[in-house]
Amino acid sequence: MSTMKALVYHGPEKISIDDVPMPKIIEPDDAIVKVTLSTICGTDIHIWHGGMPEVEPPRILGHEFCGEVVEVGPAVRNVKVGDRVAVSCVTQCGECFYCRRGSNYAHCTTGSWIFGYMIDGCQAEYVRVPHANLGCHKIPEGLTEDDVLLVGDILSTGYFGAEKAEIEPGDTVAVMGSGPVGMCAMMAARLWGPARIIAVDMNQQRLDFAVKQGYADMALNSAEVDVVEAIKDLTDGRGADRTIEAVGVKGTFDLALEAVRPCGNVSIIGVFEQPQEIPMNKMWIKNIKISMGLVNANRIPELINLIRAGRINAKPLYTHRKPLNDLLEGYDVFGNKKDNVIKWLITPYER
Amino acid sequence: MSTMKALVYHGPEKISIDDVPMPKIIEPDDAIVKVTLSTICGTDIHIWHGGMPEVEPPRILGHEFCGEVVEVGPAVRNVKVGDRVAVSCVTQCGECFYCRRGSNYAHCTTGSWIFGYMIDGCQAEYVRVPHANLGCHKIPEGLTEDDVLLVGDILSTGYFGAEKAEIEPGDTVAVMGSGPVGMCAMMAARLWGPARIIAVDMNQQRLDFAVKQGYADMALNSAEVDVVEAIKDLTDGRGADRTIEAVGVKGTFDLALEAVRPCGNVSIIGVFEQPQEIPMNKMWIKNIKISMGLVNANRIPELINLIRAGRINAKPLYTHRKPLNDLLEGYDVFGNKKDNVIKWLITPYER
Amino acid sequence: MSTMKALVYHGPEKISIDDVPMPKIIEPDDAIVKVTLSTICGTDIHIWHGGMPEVEPPRILGHEFCGEVVEVGPAVRNVKVGDRVAVSCVTQCGECFYCRRGSNYAHCTTGSWIFGYMIDGCQAEYVRVPHANLGCHKIPEGLTEDDVLLVGDILSTGYFGAEKAEIEPGDTVAVMGSGPVGMCAMMAARLWGPARIIAVDMNQQRLDFAVKQGYADMALNSAEVDVVEAIKDLTDGRGADRTIEAVGVKGTFDLALEAVRPCGNVSIIGVFEQPQEIPMNKMWIKNIKISMGLVNANRIPELINLIRAGRINAKPLYTHRKPLNDLLEGYDVFGNKKDNVIKWLITPYER
Amino acid sequence: MSTMKALVYHGPEKISIDDVPMPKIIEPDDAIVKVTLSTICGTDIHIWHGGMPEVEPPRILGHEFCGEVVEVGPAVRNVKVGDRVAVSCVTQCGECFYCRRGSNYAHCTTGSWIFGYMIDGCQAEYVRVPHANLGCHKIPEGLTEDDVLLVGDILSTGYFGAEKAEIEPGDTVAVMGSGPVGMCAMMAARLWGPARIIAVDMNQQRLDFAVKQGYADMALNSAEVDVVEAIKDLTDGRGADRTIEAVGVKGTFDLALEAVRPCGNVSIIGVFEQPQEIPMNKMWIKNIKISMGLVNANRIPELINLIRAGRINAKPLYTHRKPLNDLLEGYDVFGNKKDNVIKWLITPYER
Repeated sequence: MSTMKALVYHGPEKISIDDVPMPKIIEPDDAIVKVTLSTICGTDIHIWHGGMPEVEPPRILGHEFCGEVVEVGPAVRNVKVGDRVAVSCVTQCGECFYCRRGSNYAHCTTGSWIFGYMIDGCQAEYVRVPHANLGCHKIPEGLTEDDVLLVGDILSTGYFGAEKAEIEPGDTVAVMGSGPVGMCAMMAARLWGPARIIAVDMNQQRLDFAVKQGYADMALNSAEVDVVEAIKDLTDGRGADRTIEAVGVKGTFDLALEAVRPCGNVSIIGVFEQPQEIPMNKMWIKNIKISMGLVNANRIPELINLIRAGRINAKPLYTHRKPLNDLLEGYDVFGNKKDNVIKWLITPYER
Repeated sequence: MSTMKALVYHGPEKISIDDVPMPKIIEPDDAIVKVTLSTICGTDIHIWHGGMPEVEPPRILGHEFCGEVVEVGPAVRNVKVGDRVAVSCVTQCGECFYCRRGSNYAHCTTGSWIFGYMIDGCQAEYVRVPHANLGCHKIPEGLTEDDVLLVGDILSTGYFGAEKAEIEPGDTVAVMGSGPVGMCAMMAARLWGPARIIAVDMNQQRLDFAVKQGYADMALNSAEVDVVEAIKDLTDGRGADRTIEAVGVKGTFDLALEAVRPCGNVSIIGVFEQPQEIPMNKMWIKNIKISMGLVNANRIPELINLIRAGRINAKPLYTHRKPLNDLLEGYDVFGNKKDNVIKWLITPYER
Repeated sequence: MSTMKALVYHGPEKISIDDVPMPKIIEPDDAIVKVTLSTICGTDIHIWHGGMPEVEPPRILGHEFCGEVVEVGPAVRNVKVGDRVAVSCVTQCGECFYCRRGSNYAHCTTGSWIFGYMIDGCQAEYVRVPHANLGCHKIPEGLTEDDVLLVGDILSTGYFGAEKAEIEPGDTVAVMGSGPVGMCAMMAARLWGPARIIAVDMNQQRLDFAVKQGYADMALNSAEVDVVEAIKDLTDGRGADRTIEAVGVKGTFDLALEAVRPCGNVSIIGVFEQPQEIPMNKMWIKNIKISMGLVNANRIPELINLIRAGRINAKPLYTHRKPLNDLLEGYDVFGNKKDNVIKWLITPYER
Repeated sequence: MSTMKALVYHGPEKISIDDVPMPKIIEPDDAIVKVTLSTICGTDIHIWHGGMPEVEPPRILGHEFCGEVVEVGPAVRNVKVGDRVAVSCVTQCGECFYCRRGSNYAHCTTGSWIFGYMIDGCQAEYVRVPHANLGCHKIPEGLTEDDVLLVGDILSTGYFGAEKAEIEPGDTVAVMGSGPVGMCAMMAARLWGPARIIAVDMNQQRLDFAVKQGYADMALNSAEVDVVEAIKDLTDGRGADRTIEAVGVKGTFDLALEAVRPCGNVSIIGVFEQPQEIPMNKMWIKNIKISMGLVNANRIPELINLIRAGRINAKPLYTHRKPLNDLLEGYDVFGNKKDNVIKWLITPYER
């Protein structure tokens, strides 16, 4: 077989399922992975709508996936043909300034987020995985692709958000945005022992879902209550010890800054399209710390451990699942938030 | 009333319930607390048997308690008469070198552990609490003395042990010793998101209890299995990411050092009576970190938050409860580990 | 003597040297300090011009000073009458939520910055020092008031800025603003072993001064060069590892954000009067951390150690020195940056 | 040329300069480096005397060196033929559990310290460098091999010791042992802003040298004074904030534990041949932290930055320098501490 099926971006608002050439090993530490399960992620939708003009068509989209290693370059030593793997959405060499200084894989100088963006992605039958020694994580016996699917992107993103929030045991954590990324942040925040996780959103259904699944302890609908006042009432008038922003718009940005207590931390994992105003005249004296950024995906083996131990379970997020054949429908449903979709899963092309 | 009942230490093996003078305010930041619930702790037994000759009789013993504020000095501003409080076993000024540098309250130069040791303790009807501004923690509405009783000592000690272990999400944590302090360390360890907590002891009943209560995920009976090998089998041959020693004897000390993986942490909260040998010829290259010490009790409000949120529940440890009248029986039962005792609680003297 | 001389704020643009009542002990942990050396600080000028309308006249200004203890309340135990002391500009109880959680003295609920702001300050012959147990730091034998004068405010502010920048050995640190606070940040930054400290300002004289004194290793005049490009040229195209903002205006705020490398830290110690725009559309993916805030002044004893060891010397900043009698001249000179003033020192009133 | 000269270990007490085969590329990420400058290190002497029986003869010794890249495998991307490089003594893959979790390169599962131990080392004309992408560090323009020679081992070891000591600005640091490793620890300790570094040794000449070079601020000769008491006298009776053990014997081990203050840190970088006794009966309540280990060598680029900036200068340690031809003399002189040797440098074989 020399061609395969893939979802190809041809320019703003133009995507199609095409026959494209099979990927090949280019660098000695590349692997070729047969994609067994993947997803649509929010950034795929951004690209589709032309929001990331740096993407050069034709480009196969997608960056959150599991698969089976079918070929490895001569310098690949950590996985072998036949291994089932979860793959990091952030390509990482482990050697450059950023990889070496604090595992800042998000800024790897020969990696970072490139799948389905700078190189071809996983919404295809096969994908080339650069720096496979660090990017491919074996799925342990007893776990399925379903179990670990999200570790490569949004679960790691949630972890990143919670880690940068520097949560301490007993804290109150407010997560601004209860979409799939926000709920992953809630699951991850739980790992640092907060007394209380508060989900904030305008979508009551998603709030109810987050509380029902135990991701959050309580919910605040920002369309109905004054979130900042409500959080202060819960915290002796101080505000949340840490806030996590998981959307990327003015409303949640402002809430994250206003609802945090003095000397607290604001962790931003939303992707912003617009500059924001920060009221430094009021905030300078608040002694807060604001972090932001693209996921490092540097704790994937630990997340797999936690999933295996039953400490994290993201599977309730999987609301839809169809083969690659139906992916245009998936872009419509997920991109337009139809049918109460949370995550759309892509199974292999059916011939 | 100018006298009260109290358990008084009169020298090795000599304790009795006596009539003693009521305590009085001495320093401006002292408070007098009416004891409503207290415990016997392991160190009380040490003192009873003469193991701490620095204790000068007559001395009222006891240091883990709750009560009601009945009098305050002129510089007490954080609590007032009538407040129900949990009291830190570690007296802390908040101002000295050790208090200021990293909240090392355990070495407060005008405090540290002094109750029932250097000054009169809580196994009495009333007790003087020095540095009451930091030592007294209000019990919030909706919580009882039972709920928070242990925050002043062994729950904080467990927290201290887990904190110094620097647990990271996904870790395997082995706790050497499944007594009351070890189980508090397990409860606290859970706050940092480990994938697995392993209880280790020779007492199968206590191991079963720890697992049944959910404090540990699994148990290893060191009288029956090779604990080091068993832990390596569970961790890809590496060893536990962190070990916590909660007894203070050679067996658990050695296990804690041998069962930890390279680059892991050993956190010691046991109280030792003997020097120990450390095989530096093998350990120097293991890149481990060993911490030890007396509890700082610097996160009592946060522990109360966690109890209120249902994240920590130490009440299953309360196996016995009798009034101060019967405390000599308590020393016998708790000191000789009779009747499957875990914690012996002391209610007020009944006249 | 029942009155003393003091610089009193009577409303915007209205200050005068008045006869006012002597301060008295109010709380048990108050001390009265005879001021032997003090300064004018930037915020005094803000208040003078009406920029802080929350200041209620009549108010004695000033918050950076040394003196001699002349009276103590009954709960003062750490200093005694006759002690020469440097006093923290940030009043701290050591007991409240913020003092306890990470020594965030800046947000002490019964303290924080109050001298010359919410209560009477030090531009007087005597001043009441609340929470004197933590606020007063003995000047060791062999050191003079001149040596330690700035530890109570701007040297601690510089330290705070450098500490929050989380400098690592070998880093490149750029300090935006080479005024007295910026130069204190440079002195402090040196303590974490950077390879290079870059002073940035538009005032060439101050830049030259910073380099000549060894506070900075090199200088960039932002009126003459493209600072961001110049810093990238020095750092393999990456940007400064950490930037410190020490002014509080748009120009330096923007520079601090643009000149920092991905995954670097921005530490803001400038006092802002205006909101600022942050280009989140570009910054979200830069993985930076931004901290801001009012000084905690929680390392004054350590700063005194460093001064005694000759590791820090801020005395070259003292450009002017006159008695309290001439303080109106001081406000004019310092407030209008005349005569190349860096710091204006105030000696006691001369009768 | 198919053979080269090398110092070969043939078993206890048996070393010789032999003609051996040239090294060859084995793995795709190997490089071959022509050694231009190397040293004898303390562990070489241990091996020579048979103290490390796990070393299988014939083995080329040596692990601290600089050189020129003469050949690279197909997966080497960070250096190229002709590059002058300083090489880490600790081989590191950047991908395994230990490399990934906190840059614990010392325990890299396909690396760690192997040069001149498990694989052939650098006391030769050429050496094979595994995992060359991480192991080879380019020497920047303007610096010589002399400048950076020690970054690959003892300067990184000193850095490791100082880093694990977690020194804070203003601290008093005592280094037990003023040999080459101890002096590197002093140089590194300076990077964290201590107020005072105290060199401790029994060799007055080395103590004088350390003070004269500015590595230490003062010296204590443990053969002449009670070091623990002397340090307490200097620190208000508390002890050193941090101690670093740089020898590996009982005397310095005990001193490091006794001279540290409560709540201080002990950092051990000495290589021990014997178990040690730790007085846990006294130490458990001292709240100290003890770390130990083999160097990670994870900050070599930063050390090179600091050398370039003039912040670190280890060259005064170079007391002897002769070609590979004379290396047997070097083992005698360095191994028997003759002629006041500190470091013996090896220049290329002269034909």
